[in-house]
Amino acid sequence: MGKPLHLHEHRLFPSEPGAREICRRLYAEVKSLPIISPHGHTDPSWFALNESFSNPAELLLTPDHYVLRMLYSQGISMQSLGVKPDDGGDYETDPRQVWRLFAEHYYLFRGTPSQLWLDYIFYHVFNINVRLDASTADRYYDIINTALATDEFRPRALFEQYNIEVISTTESPLDDLKHHRHILDSDWSGRVISAFRPDPVIDPEFEGFTQNIEKLAALTGENCSDFASYLKALAARRAFFKSTGVTSSDHGHPTALTADLSLQECERLYQKVIASKCSAQDAELFRAQMLTEMAKMSIEDGLVMQIHPGVYRNHNPRLFQGFGRDKGADIPLQTDYVNALKPLLDKFGNDSRLSIIVFTLDETSYSRELAPLAGHYPALKIGPAWWFHDSPEGMRRYREQVTETAGFYNTVGFNDDTRAFLSIPARHDVARRMDCNFLSKLVAEHRLHEDEAHELAHGLAYDFAKKAYKL
Amino acid sequence: MGKPLHLHEHRLFPSEPGAREICRRLYAEVKSLPIISPHGHTDPSWFALNESFSNPAELLLTPDHYVLRMLYSQGISMQSLGVKPDDGGDYETDPRQVWRLFAEHYYLFRGTPSQLWLDYIFYHVFNINVRLDASTADRYYDIINTALATDEFRPRALFEQYNIEVISTTESPLDDLKHHRHILDSDWSGRVISAFRPDPVIDPEFEGFTQNIEKLAALTGENCSDFASYLKALAARRAFFKSTGVTSSDHGHPTALTADLSLQECERLYQKVIASKCSAQDAELFRAQMLTEMAKMSIEDGLVMQIHPGVYRNHNPRLFQGFGRDKGADIPLQTDYVNALKPLLDKFGNDSRLSIIVFTLDETSYSRELAPLAGHYPALKIGPAWWFHDSPEGMRRYREQVTETAGFYNTVGFNDDTRAFLSIPARHDVARRMDCNFLSKLVAEHRLHEDEAHELAHGLAYDFAKKAYKL
Amino acid sequence: MGKPLHLHEHRLFPSEPGAREICRRLYAEVKSLPIISPHGHTDPSWFALNESFSNPAELLLTPDHYVLRMLYSQGISMQSLGVKPDDGGDYETDPRQVWRLFAEHYYLFRGTPSQLWLDYIFYHVFNINVRLDASTADRYYDIINTALATDEFRPRALFEQYNIEVISTTESPLDDLKHHRHILDSDWSGRVISAFRPDPVIDPEFEGFTQNIEKLAALTGENCSDFASYLKALAARRAFFKSTGVTSSDHGHPTALTADLSLQECERLYQKVIASKCSAQDAELFRAQMLTEMAKMSIEDGLVMQIHPGVYRNHNPRLFQGFGRDKGADIPLQTDYVNALKPLLDKFGNDSRLSIIVFTLDETSYSRELAPLAGHYPALKIGPAWWFHDSPEGMRRYREQVTETAGFYNTVGFNDDTRAFLSIPARHDVARRMDCNFLSKLVAEHRLHEDEAHELAHGLAYDFAKKAYKL
Repeated sequence: MGKPLHLHEHRLFPSEPGAREICRRLYAEVKSLPIISPHGHTDPSWFALNESFSNPAELLLTPDHYVLRMLYSQGISMQSLGVKPDDGGDYETDPRQVWRLFAEHYYLFRGTPSQLWLDYIFYHVFNINVRLDASTADRYYDIINTALATDEFRPRALFEQYNIEVISTTESPLDDLKHHRHILDSDWSGRVISAFRPDPVIDPEFEGFTQNIEKLAALTGENCSDFASYLKALAARRAFFKSTGVTSSDHGHPTALTADLSLQECERLYQKVIASKCSAQDAELFRAQMLTEMAKMSIEDGLVMQIHPGVYRNHNPRLFQGFGRDKGADIPLQTDYVNALKPLLDKFGNDSRLSIIVFTLDETSYSRELAPLAGHYPALKIGPAWWFHDSPEGMRRYREQVTETAGFYNTVGFNDDTRAFLSIPARHDVARRMDCNFLSKLVAEHRLHEDEAHELAHGLAYDFAKKAYKL
Repeated sequence: MGKPLHLHEHRLFPSEPGAREICRRLYAEVKSLPIISPHGHTDPSWFALNESFSNPAELLLTPDHYVLRMLYSQGISMQSLGVKPDDGGDYETDPRQVWRLFAEHYYLFRGTPSQLWLDYIFYHVFNINVRLDASTADRYYDIINTALATDEFRPRALFEQYNIEVISTTESPLDDLKHHRHILDSDWSGRVISAFRPDPVIDPEFEGFTQNIEKLAALTGENCSDFASYLKALAARRAFFKSTGVTSSDHGHPTALTADLSLQECERLYQKVIASKCSAQDAELFRAQMLTEMAKMSIEDGLVMQIHPGVYRNHNPRLFQGFGRDKGADIPLQTDYVNALKPLLDKFGNDSRLSIIVFTLDETSYSRELAPLAGHYPALKIGPAWWFHDSPEGMRRYREQVTETAGFYNTVGFNDDTRAFLSIPARHDVARRMDCNFLSKLVAEHRLHEDEAHELAHGLAYDFAKKAYKL
Repeated sequence: MGKPLHLHEHRLFPSEPGAREICRRLYAEVKSLPIISPHGHTDPSWFALNESFSNPAELLLTPDHYVLRMLYSQGISMQSLGVKPDDGGDYETDPRQVWRLFAEHYYLFRGTPSQLWLDYIFYHVFNINVRLDASTADRYYDIINTALATDEFRPRALFEQYNIEVISTTESPLDDLKHHRHILDSDWSGRVISAFRPDPVIDPEFEGFTQNIEKLAALTGENCSDFASYLKALAARRAFFKSTGVTSSDHGHPTALTADLSLQECERLYQKVIASKCSAQDAELFRAQMLTEMAKMSIEDGLVMQIHPGVYRNHNPRLFQGFGRDKGADIPLQTDYVNALKPLLDKFGNDSRLSIIVFTLDETSYSRELAPLAGHYPALKIGPAWWFHDSPEGMRRYREQVTETAGFYNTVGFNDDTRAFLSIPARHDVARRMDCNFLSKLVAEHRLHEDEAHELAHGLAYDFAKKAYKL
């Protein structure tokens, strides 16, 4: 029953035999390196509490916005996928039914990275060797469900099996990091750290912003009634995060705009912002100024700064109202960096103590803006192909468009940026294969010596991320 | 005399032997499938009247804006190419002379899709096996001219020889579709349908807009003096088109802007528009609103909606004044979709009954905007690589940039979009070869199972277009 | 000591053996063609005075903004690279120390064109066959330093050894071209011409603009107090340049904006401009108008017009203030052509006597704007992949995105655009290899006949540049 599933040893390698052989040699040396996961969205409670995952649908499908969006685009409702509507309406509560629906439509993922990741999980993690379709749905469900009940599939066991050296989650400054602290205090040696994501207290348009500022004040003992006190409160939370092993901050603003306002202007703007009297323009300017403030603090406390701009979040208001965030309705936007980052770079761009990692969903900026900027400013590096571009072709375009201007050494290795824990080795494996693929072509075309390619393959798979994120 | 012309059986296949062999297998199964031509600009009178085509120049050269633009770019005048100037000045009236000039400059098309299409016509349709150049110009002229006089080269015979299952032309709502109705009433079984292209009565900046509205009123018996009556008139014409077998509408606005205005605002805007008192901004807003109105009607009558935005039409005013439209002076523009389509998508984007096929000439939108949008909204699909990008490299970029986010199943197969009837099989053949090429690389790199590739090749060549256009 | 350096005969060829063999045949015919260098920034005094170059660091490193930017991006100071700070502060004055620092960090250039060019120089010009790193730094320094003292490494000898048929430098209209005239009057047969670069007297925001106008007036005897006299002065300088063999002008404006103002408007704008009372908008409009004026003069005097727009010069103000221009802090900008060039094209775009070569650093404009424009307007051609894109992948993208719409014959061959004299053959070699690579793939995929590819390879390496620049 079912068509055979076999993941070829040389998948994602060049098909030309000469380059493939080089690729094989490169990959052989990096395939088993420990995983550095310097940015992502896994739930720290998994590792703190170490409880079993519930069932195949809740584990692999419902929380994966890549999967939800594709199924939804073909007219499959959120309810039938087991997503609970906010209005309390009906939805499918039997995970087996949800899984069957998914299995029937698994063909939609042909040619997408989701299929690569999922097949990896099916084949390498659950040892399934038939393909997922309607005829094998139940068999899959049973195998996975049974496995999840065993100790080998608890979060910590998987963490170890996956050979994860360190993983970073992402939390709000208002988070108490209890799970991280619990892990630190435990006898488990797994390294799970957070990243400082201050959007909820920096972005005046974030839901509950003013309440968040109040919480920030309460947490820190700073009253946050003026800009100076607000900055002190943020610095205090950064210090708290850092005390738990955190090495980076993360910023998900709609644009990459930065600003360098006078103290007076900052104060005036801050007063508007906390009085909830700011316009959309004020909000944008405040976020812009706060990126520069965060950079300043980074120089002081050493946190690496990640900027993930250029997304139209919740583009589909009905879906958002009905089912909330992260259901696959975020859409990239055209994004400027050359003008947007200039105020920050004017101020701190020449400071080698600062390390800003910039990401983009607008691939036009690779060769036009980000590679030229990162290939010049000591404070700037380019993050890997992100989100929609975390895919074989996306990675290929990234390397082809970035390398010639920024080199390899202004990039920072891979990060999986995922909440889909099970897919982490699959994602790193795709990245390692594609980096070896790219390097093997350079070698095959005599643009790089093979010993250099070996060094770079190791760097891209492990060393670069470790260094860039100070891990 | 002349250099040999031979079209290699494996042209446009990957040069790497492993992938080529896979490509060969895929192509073998799709090469002879019937042609679905769901969007184009052929002249329905050809199939209604079935008269012989006149001569090689008038058939293959003068109506082909790809050919005219390239020759013109190298300093060859429109007059010498047989294009009649509007001022009544001299121009070349001997088609043989025009053909000779073309033949002398045929080398300009090296590396372009025009050469691929034309060589296909020469080799496969006219069985010529020397290359076109100055030395073979007359031989070509004579062979083609002689053939055109035969019954085998009349439109209906070619339609059948080309194995066209259905072809769509494009007409204004003011058209009486007499040729289409004539074909329907005839004993010829060829399926030639129209598409509803309302630009002349929807775009206030269209030449003769107010007169067009008057004609629309006359045709429908709706007075079109208010917005409601105007919408009724449009719905009536859609119904008329639909009664002749039409399954789609088509919209060629300068941008993809949509709007969702109140009824009051619509009425006020409409009054300005029909009074010829609207500004450029009003015109843009009216077009935007009308896309949303058309979407609403599509949900009611089931017509599939095509949007072809982002062209600066008639960029060269001297050429336009001297020789009119469609002479190769249309230039693509940077085009936004994420913000532009939002009002329409907010209203109807979640409705699976609606099917909007969006095209672009701005390739930057593939991975940044269109694939993410089509990979989420049930109502949205992405049309194939269009116009300047209807070419091997253009198709390759399309698949590479669209597939990983939107998958294959949010695309709609190929359409030739041409008025160059003879080139239709050539164009579909290029598309089939390039799709097999892309699929064969996925298989060769073990990113897709070969049986899946076979299914997809068939889909991309035939099924997808048939389904997406409800044919 | 040191790892072996060997430049493979087939570097940059396709790795697939079939295509590689075709590429080998194509390259064999073009590799030794004379170099046409129609645009660049070498120093004419080198060829006029024929003095020995000083030392390896001053020759190969300090003047190369590609090299400086990469080293700087990794936190290496300008001072340590031997760049003298404007504030009179300390800097490394021992070129051997500078060279050692460079050698230690040479690995940063892996995968960049800089490494391809430099390795070519090391291997082919200086016959070094170990790689550059810390361990070989002194050996390199000694070999190069010794060579530079010999007559074979004087500028004229290298010019001849490099088989340069003609080279163009770039000078201001205020330049007296004494070096060029010296060469013309000498018994040396090397052809070194200038290009007319009027930015200093056309761009109101250029440093010293008003003094420049005064100098222009003094040089020409035109008082430049009104627009007509100013235009006469410019025409006079063009005539002077032309009298020394100059065939082109060059324009490096921030955007590609052109304008077609009335004489009155021109006069009013000019008066503002020379009174230093113009806003940023006025300055932009003046530059825009002057492009159209230059085009008009080009029709009269036959100079080919180059436009190099879209760069944010001196993006890093601290670096600029500390060390001046051209240190690697110029960043590309998003650039529009379709609207920007329209006023000029409306006026002169149909005139075959005019030849405008447009460049871009915004690769998105290749397929969307420049190929469609150049594939239509007789007056317009597309310059080769420029600056950050003068690289293997950049050239590949250029050909893939330009050829299908503009063909090969609306392109103009290669230009090196460099002040790094020693790298000129290396750069042309990369371009020749990559063009043969592209052509060989077309042949291998049966999209081009091999005899056509041979003709095109020759054209792209030699004929096209010679013809386009009237050399």
